[in-house]
Amino acid sequence: MTAETPLIRQASEIAYESVDAADGLEKGVLLDETHGASNLALRRFTIAPGGSVPKHTNEIEHEQYVLAGEYTVGIEGEDGEVTEQTVSAGDAVHIPAGAVHWYQNDGDEEGAFICAVPLGDDEIALVE
Amino acid sequence: MTAETPLIRQASEIAYESVDAADGLEKGVLLDETHGASNLALRRFTIAPGGSVPKHTNEIEHEQYVLAGEYTVGIEGEDGEVTEQTVSAGDAVHIPAGAVHWYQNDGDEEGAFICAVPLGDDEIALVE
Repeated sequence: MTAETPLIRQASEIAYESVDAADGLEKGVLLDETHGASNLALRRFTIAPGGSVPKHTNEIEHEQYVLAGEYTVGIEGEDGEVTEQTVSAGDAVHIPAGAVHWYQNDGDEEGAFICAVPLGDDEIALVE
Repeated sequence: MTAETPLIRQASEIAYESVDAADGLEKGVLLDETHGASNLALRRFTIAPGGSVPKHTNEIEHEQYVLAGEYTVGIEGEDGEVTEQTVSAGDAVHIPAGAVHWYQNDGDEEGAFICAVPLGDDEIALVE
């Protein structure tokens, strides 16, 4: 570890940027390989009131922890069964690799969540 | 996925238990292989006011996000340099595999953090 890869990053150091193909979604990388991580990345996302993320798949699984707000998460399981429910602070969400999923924030508050993923290439595909 | 492995777990479903060898530390597993995770586990820890976790190492890296409280995290880097600082909500902490680390909550509030780890065996060793 060097001064370039501090082991502790303060909230104010995290940069956020808008995510393409979503409406009102911002992403900040907390930790990834550029900060010395070997196996997984930790990111924080915010979804503005009225914001949404269309149906899509990722190649890698997501494990999420809801920090704030009340928003809807939809996930298609392997058996085609759809789980769609409103989540709020403290809830945990598992999105298996390749599962179609989406988000919708119909609340008045910003939604926020932590999303942990394995390091490595990811391919995002929008679903019609 | 079956009814036994729901993709969304509500905060109220998470069970917490005390962690041996620490004082005032509780651990709740949000997601791991028993919930269908393939690569990583997500856990939530709380540290009571006055609580502490002695110097120890883990075989696997930890990536953490601070949820609440103000507590001290200490980490020895590969070069032997010690990072020790007070963290609060929104901060991110990377503890490399094998790095000696410790926690101390000298605040009046409960500390809480999310800790993501790769799945697989971990060995915890206390350091004299």
